[in-house]
Amino acid sequence: MIQGIAASNGIAIAKAYQLVTPALTYEKKAIDNPNKEIERLDSALATAKQELEKIKEHTRKEMGDEHAEIFSAHLLVLDDPEMVNPMKDKITNENVMAETALEETANMFVDMFKNMDNEYMRERAADIQDVSKRVLAHLLGVTVPNPALIDEEVIVIANDLTPSDTAQLNRDFVRGFATDIGGRTSHSAIMARSLEIPAVVGTRGVTKSVKNDDVVIVDGIEGNVIVNPSEDKLAEYKEKQAAFERQKEEWAKLKNEPTITADKEQVELAANIGTPDDVDGVLANGGEGIGLYRTEFLYMGKNQLPTEDEQYDAYKTVLEKMEDKPVVVRTLDVGGDKEISYLDLPEELNPFLGFRAIRFCLENDDVFRTQLRALLRASVHGNLKIMFPMVATLEEFRQAKGMLLDEKQNLKDEGTAVSDDIEVGIMVEIPSTAVTARQFAKEVDFFSIGTNDLIQYTMAADRMNERVSYLYQPYHPAILNLVNSVIEAAHAEDKWVGMCGEMAGDSIAIPALLGLGLDEFSMSATSILPARTQIRDLSKEKMASYKDKLLSMGTTEEVVEFIREKTE
Amino acid sequence: MIQGIAASNGIAIAKAYQLVTPALTYEKKAIDNPNKEIERLDSALATAKQELEKIKEHTRKEMGDEHAEIFSAHLLVLDDPEMVNPMKDKITNENVMAETALEETANMFVDMFKNMDNEYMRERAADIQDVSKRVLAHLLGVTVPNPALIDEEVIVIANDLTPSDTAQLNRDFVRGFATDIGGRTSHSAIMARSLEIPAVVGTRGVTKSVKNDDVVIVDGIEGNVIVNPSEDKLAEYKEKQAAFERQKEEWAKLKNEPTITADKEQVELAANIGTPDDVDGVLANGGEGIGLYRTEFLYMGKNQLPTEDEQYDAYKTVLEKMEDKPVVVRTLDVGGDKEISYLDLPEELNPFLGFRAIRFCLENDDVFRTQLRALLRASVHGNLKIMFPMVATLEEFRQAKGMLLDEKQNLKDEGTAVSDDIEVGIMVEIPSTAVTARQFAKEVDFFSIGTNDLIQYTMAADRMNERVSYLYQPYHPAILNLVNSVIEAAHAEDKWVGMCGEMAGDSIAIPALLGLGLDEFSMSATSILPARTQIRDLSKEKMASYKDKLLSMGTTEEVVEFIREKTE
Repeated sequence: MIQGIAASNGIAIAKAYQLVTPALTYEKKAIDNPNKEIERLDSALATAKQELEKIKEHTRKEMGDEHAEIFSAHLLVLDDPEMVNPMKDKITNENVMAETALEETANMFVDMFKNMDNEYMRERAADIQDVSKRVLAHLLGVTVPNPALIDEEVIVIANDLTPSDTAQLNRDFVRGFATDIGGRTSHSAIMARSLEIPAVVGTRGVTKSVKNDDVVIVDGIEGNVIVNPSEDKLAEYKEKQAAFERQKEEWAKLKNEPTITADKEQVELAANIGTPDDVDGVLANGGEGIGLYRTEFLYMGKNQLPTEDEQYDAYKTVLEKMEDKPVVVRTLDVGGDKEISYLDLPEELNPFLGFRAIRFCLENDDVFRTQLRALLRASVHGNLKIMFPMVATLEEFRQAKGMLLDEKQNLKDEGTAVSDDIEVGIMVEIPSTAVTARQFAKEVDFFSIGTNDLIQYTMAADRMNERVSYLYQPYHPAILNLVNSVIEAAHAEDKWVGMCGEMAGDSIAIPALLGLGLDEFSMSATSILPARTQIRDLSKEKMASYKDKLLSMGTTEEVVEFIREKTE
Repeated sequence: MIQGIAASNGIAIAKAYQLVTPALTYEKKAIDNPNKEIERLDSALATAKQELEKIKEHTRKEMGDEHAEIFSAHLLVLDDPEMVNPMKDKITNENVMAETALEETANMFVDMFKNMDNEYMRERAADIQDVSKRVLAHLLGVTVPNPALIDEEVIVIANDLTPSDTAQLNRDFVRGFATDIGGRTSHSAIMARSLEIPAVVGTRGVTKSVKNDDVVIVDGIEGNVIVNPSEDKLAEYKEKQAAFERQKEEWAKLKNEPTITADKEQVELAANIGTPDDVDGVLANGGEGIGLYRTEFLYMGKNQLPTEDEQYDAYKTVLEKMEDKPVVVRTLDVGGDKEISYLDLPEELNPFLGFRAIRFCLENDDVFRTQLRALLRASVHGNLKIMFPMVATLEEFRQAKGMLLDEKQNLKDEGTAVSDDIEVGIMVEIPSTAVTARQFAKEVDFFSIGTNDLIQYTMAADRMNERVSYLYQPYHPAILNLVNSVIEAAHAEDKWVGMCGEMAGDSIAIPALLGLGLDEFSMSATSILPARTQIRDLSKEKMASYKDKLLSMGTTEEVVEFIREKTE
């Protein structure tokens, strides 16, 4: 049994699928038969080609033509005689192994293209690199994982899952995740909750303890991974799994109920999503709105910016599916730990304190205005609210809102319909903004507190850094005080406050947030029904009476102990 | 004329000294005469040896035996036949140039030692690397800058000055700095102010526009660098220089005066220092105390931790020189942008949000306790106050203070005298601590607000990152609100509050801070007399009457405009 962090609820049992890139090393040897090497190369090229065709087809079906294009580019490389002939010449003339010929030729082209002052050619360099790795793997007889081609039920075992890994996963067959690193707020964890599959993260070594095809149990309730369980264990966990299903059925009874406290106060439970596909899960879990639509995924896993129309389609789909329920769309939050290769962002010493989100958008206003126009055009299809991320100063908000109003006027001048009821708000995730919420509240329509970042800036601790992640303390009195200031400032101006960080769905945090007067809680879809169940048993008035006490506490430990005691 | 950021007051005129490491590249050629190569090598070794002897002697005289030791280690490498003979063998047997023989031999030893699991051997690897670069430079006939050997008046021109660069400078002859990068709070700027020499930083290219021996004017008042000025320009700046000297004489009249506002309220003006040598400058500039003694310099530019006795000597010297004036010593603040090679700190993605300062000390309590014991022993020699950096939670403060009390008891048990009047406080540089200052104020003896870090965490902007440094806004209402909360919380518990960031010496900030009730302002020594001059003309009551207005402002611009208007 391997202990990790419970990151997504439930129990999964399936075969292990190692999503780990193998080492592609080999010993250089003299060859005696160049023709044999050319044959080996041809065969590896052919296998790679078949594989890429399959992945391309799969990606096209699952994610559309745009996403499949990258694999067309890879296939072009394999078919290019200017690429393949020099490899064969090298084998014949220099008497080298197919591996060496492949690598040296590929490296030559990569170096050449990479140094060109031309974005298109630099992308080709990346394609050549990717493809030549795939061919080299086939030459060496090692398996490159192709998560798009998974066709049986599996538990994915990985060091960490990046956004591009998960974009390629065949979601129909993935039953759970287990990763070496990460915490409850890492991408793997958030993705597992959005896929509604159990996950255990931060195991510090599950990839080393598990082999492909081992039977694995992922217990996302307790945070355990069990490898090749005994009959007894298996039976025990199957029972646990069934119990969890029964619990889910209980929760499901509240699907169409409003979220009302024991003393009859109503709050809104919304969901965080990444793509239009996630909306079905939100509705199935009784979400009363979308509190955070992360639009970064529209920009990821491709070679170029999404067009205005592509974006419009995505926003329209979400708005229509949600009918008249509120949908808060966050504008592009790139940078920090979210890289987008074709945007050529600067390398930074402290990317979390760097050029990201609204800072990037205000300087790249062509990128930003395209998104704003797509949002404005989509606004007539539902209840849209627009939210700017990483706002630190009033000037930034004013500038961003100015651009939005500009584009609205432009669209109207062009005769395009735009809603006149779009609320415009900001994420509160930078301490300066929380501290001056009074000033912001006069100008924004709403706040949504982004606790993931707010906590790390307030505590000056990178939550991804294991040496200091113990300082990432959602229940710390400093966080509660900042949340309280934001809510008081907003309510004084009759504005509403949501929270879209992981804290909003946390069972220790919910009673405190209710007492502070939070209006909207936005969380992973699968947390909504458990949260609704919890809130129906809480008295808002009682929790509010503990406010001063909570805000004057010294430590996280005191807060947790107090909340546990008062909600038992 | 090159425009930069004015980082340290005054005008300097002298010859340029480029502190830039040259590229050590060469073309590999076949040789015809191995004996000639061996002669070249011997000659380069001999020159390097002479140079190192001089640097060692200079360093010993200026900074003591400890710091000179690193050069003894370098000299040992040059004298080691096991290092030198393989180079000569390589020349004879492999018919290679002296450069190649030197590099290949050095690299072999470096690789071997670096991979040993033994700290001593890893240090030797670093020594070999340093020395072989020096010898290679002599072989190639290029000049390695030896800042320790400067023996005429110069302006140092550099990309940036690191702490180890400045540790080696011969301060007697350096008249000014001009650097490519950095801002008012970068190390180069702080160091220039502590040396009381003019500096212009952030010129984005002064190293490219200036050659060695060009005549250079550094105008640290306006932030300009003039290269090879005309006669007229030279005369103009000599007049400006004389005017600045006259201004300094005016300031000097207040040297022994207390710092009293127009309405007879007293505050304390203290200085930030890095080494015991800086104390003379503090006293010469009328400092009423040391508000921040950065102890990192004791740990830098050497191969191992400073011993308890070495530290004791340094602390004792500062305390004795300052007589009964307060001396606030900050315990080790390592990590972030302050690296100490022998401590083996982790590589981090966001070092400013990482494992630094008190976080490091609490985990490495042997390092920390040595410093605490040295401080406690020194406490009987003056008015010592101990301050912990980067405290984010009450638990950290309690744990650090617990260790201090432990060591105090241990020393007493051993019969060592320790003062019973040591105040123990914290830096407030993390938003969580500012927000929960009420809770901290019950347990600490004082606060010192470290604005350099507090601003960057509060605004979520790395001040070293040029893409976002515009967000480093000391006068932002969020900063003023946090400073105000800290002061209110402290005064409610009868504790005092200082400020030891750059903001404390800033002429726009001073009126606002006076109004908020700051008790102690700690700054570069050279800022003290101008600050005292300014404060004598200000009314604290009047500034306090603007408090609510300032705290409710929306932007930095409004704040600056208002303060300018009210203090004209």
